[in-house]
Amino acid sequence: MTNPTAAILVIGDEILSGRTRDSNLHYLAGELTRVGITLCEARIVADVHEKIVAAVRALSASHTHLFTSGGIGPTHDDITADAVAEAMSARVSHRPDAMALLQAHYDRAGLPFNEARQRMARIPDGATLIDNPVSTAPGFTLGNVHVMAGVPNIFQAMVASLLPRLVGGPPLLSQSLRVDRGEGEIAGPFGALAAEFPDLSMGSYPFLQNGAHGANLVIRGTDPARIDEAMLRLTRLFG
Amino acid sequence: MTNPTAAILVIGDEILSGRTRDSNLHYLAGELTRVGITLCEARIVADVHEKIVAAVRALSASHTHLFTSGGIGPTHDDITADAVAEAMSARVSHRPDAMALLQAHYDRAGLPFNEARQRMARIPDGATLIDNPVSTAPGFTLGNVHVMAGVPNIFQAMVASLLPRLVGGPPLLSQSLRVDRGEGEIAGPFGALAAEFPDLSMGSYPFLQNGAHGANLVIRGTDPARIDEAMLRLTRLFG
Repeated sequence: MTNPTAAILVIGDEILSGRTRDSNLHYLAGELTRVGITLCEARIVADVHEKIVAAVRALSASHTHLFTSGGIGPTHDDITADAVAEAMSARVSHRPDAMALLQAHYDRAGLPFNEARQRMARIPDGATLIDNPVSTAPGFTLGNVHVMAGVPNIFQAMVASLLPRLVGGPPLLSQSLRVDRGEGEIAGPFGALAAEFPDLSMGSYPFLQNGAHGANLVIRGTDPARIDEAMLRLTRLFG
Repeated sequence: MTNPTAAILVIGDEILSGRTRDSNLHYLAGELTRVGITLCEARIVADVHEKIVAAVRALSASHTHLFTSGGIGPTHDDITADAVAEAMSARVSHRPDAMALLQAHYDRAGLPFNEARQRMARIPDGATLIDNPVSTAPGFTLGNVHVMAGVPNIFQAMVASLLPRLVGGPPLLSQSLRVDRGEGEIAGPFGALAAEFPDLSMGSYPFLQNGAHGANLVIRGTDPARIDEAMLRLTRLFG
């Protein structure tokens, strides 16, 4: 697999407490697959400075890209910019470019550009801003770390601003076959087929429906002809 | 925070490719909150032996409990038992207790207990089985690592089998106030209130609805009287 690799770090107590169900991870996973960047790992950590710093260091060092979600708003629990800056040994300040964007935004809205709102202009030195067409307060890219908002529609808008800048590989394609038999019945021949196609990835995702066992057998790879070839064999086995 | 801590490790390519949306993490988060175990971190890794071993080692060493989801079925991509055993320096074998459970299950169903199905009896030495009332193939607890299936209804049944065995702390309680104002307007006083109640955790979770900014302000803690006291103050500020 020579495609660029990625990790995502979701920052937020509200997901770990079970209060909110994350959707950004699932959204980004689909987008990265589409542009040929392989998502290798996801982590969710609480709003704790040291935890964010440690995760940013580990994940940015071991992947081509690290994407983060959450913690860049104006409240006291928004600590992502400082943590990412520390992890990457950068300094944070109220950046003039971000201050100007936000000042203009609040002027237009007739709202005071107060101290809390100015917090959203605290961006590490050397970072490139990520455009936020929804609510102006920008994300940023620092080194290989892309810092985005947690609110799903803002996150998605930032991903759309960012992805065209990144170089991907051939898109990861997949085909699947639903088999209404238990995995225990198909595991032997399916494993043998997987061993014959080492350039593809084959996975079995079991389900239980109305008390009956079944599985979705998924074949993934970047070469459509090879996937077709393997699917033909799979269909002959279990179709 | 003196409650026991936990991490969850979700194992599965299908979530990282965006094909499937994880639900086990969200389910377990809610259950742990209810029994007073603090979920501090979640990770999702691909079906890669070394990645699972490394994550199990890191997360089991740094938390009271580690829960895993996925990769314990009969197919070639089910590699969790071996990876957990390696991480915990245990040996894996076809355990007689698990073999007997599965043999009886397939005898009742009139299905052959073939080599693939026998794979599900490969359990590390010294592990305690976790009951699977849905489809028999057990999970297991090895040290502080609790290994469970990925299929959501089986995962949930295993969590129900397991949780009564674990000692929790006082349940983590929360109350929230929905505020139809932008975070930038409330951040100052909300941060000051949070500083006055260091024994509670206060978070702001912004949303955009029909183009209008709002936030859910959440107060969490284990002492209901303190949460009431803080909520009263919060309601006076923004109610």
